[in-house]
Amino acid sequence: MRKQVLSILVENTSGVLSHVSGLFSRRGYNIDSFSAGVTTDPRYTRMTIVTSGDEQILEQIEKQVAKLEDVVDIKILEPEASVRRELMLVKVKKALPAEQKSPYSLAELTNNFHGKSVDETPDSVLIEVTGNTDKLDSFLENLQIDYEILELARTGLTALSRGADDVVFL
Amino acid sequence: MRKQVLSILVENTSGVLSHVSGLFSRRGYNIDSFSAGVTTDPRYTRMTIVTSGDEQILEQIEKQVAKLEDVVDIKILEPEASVRRELMLVKVKKALPAEQKSPYSLAELTNNFHGKSVDETPDSVLIEVTGNTDKLDSFLENLQIDYEILELARTGLTALSRGADDVVFL
Repeated sequence: MRKQVLSILVENTSGVLSHVSGLFSRRGYNIDSFSAGVTTDPRYTRMTIVTSGDEQILEQIEKQVAKLEDVVDIKILEPEASVRRELMLVKVKKALPAEQKSPYSLAELTNNFHGKSVDETPDSVLIEVTGNTDKLDSFLENLQIDYEILELARTGLTALSRGADDVVFL
Repeated sequence: MRKQVLSILVENTSGVLSHVSGLFSRRGYNIDSFSAGVTTDPRYTRMTIVTSGDEQILEQIEKQVAKLEDVVDIKILEPEASVRRELMLVKVKKALPAEQKSPYSLAELTNNFHGKSVDETPDSVLIEVTGNTDKLDSFLENLQIDYEILELARTGLTALSRGADDVVFL
């Protein structure tokens, strides 16, 4: 069992999300993470799907997705040859310093992970942080030592290949 | 016609993405942006969908989505009462300074939008930038004055309500 990141360029039709997710659902393929955004050409959307399975399943997924009518291009993004990022918004309840077990204050922890506070009320702080999946998971683990997480929203992973060799499209 | 941001907490089943996107597709509802990520409780995923339509359609969408079996909670996030963010990776071809029309160099433009260069080759630069949709669109517009965009990946919008009053779940 191995994870694989697929970067899929699709036609921007109303049914495309349903076609792609329907394929994964029907065949029982895993979707560990999903994100999608338009390109500079409004006719096309780029989806990034993190999937997992054994070698045979991963090969099948790539072939089946490539066969879908709305799919224009599909690329496997290898870890060392790609940049992978995710954005997370996390709302925590403020805690009293005297009760804290971590050596870091909330501001210090946020700084350590290059995050920033984007909203604050008397009771809560909303933090934005970006990075690869491991970094975000690690931030959450550290946060939870002292803070109750009230709400959380992650975008899912997005990624591009490093360099400019294999560019097919926007 | 108006845009609306829905924050939808769903059970993390293999079919949930297909169920939600199938509903939008069958009924011809617009999906302007879509993102999804797990919460700290692995049983639940939070989806953020930007949709558009007249008042009647927007009301229908909310009701229909709430009825889906995998949907645990649905909230409309109003602009002034929420924080909205998106992450973009954009790869541009380097250009000669003598040919440039913008008053800003690539590094200055990236700084102006609080972005950062995350990969560089002799021919290309890969930039990461986060912000609301308007900010990312404006960055792209400014970039395209002088630079050819080789590849682009956006996560789609994610969002959380400001404050801690209406928190239902992680």
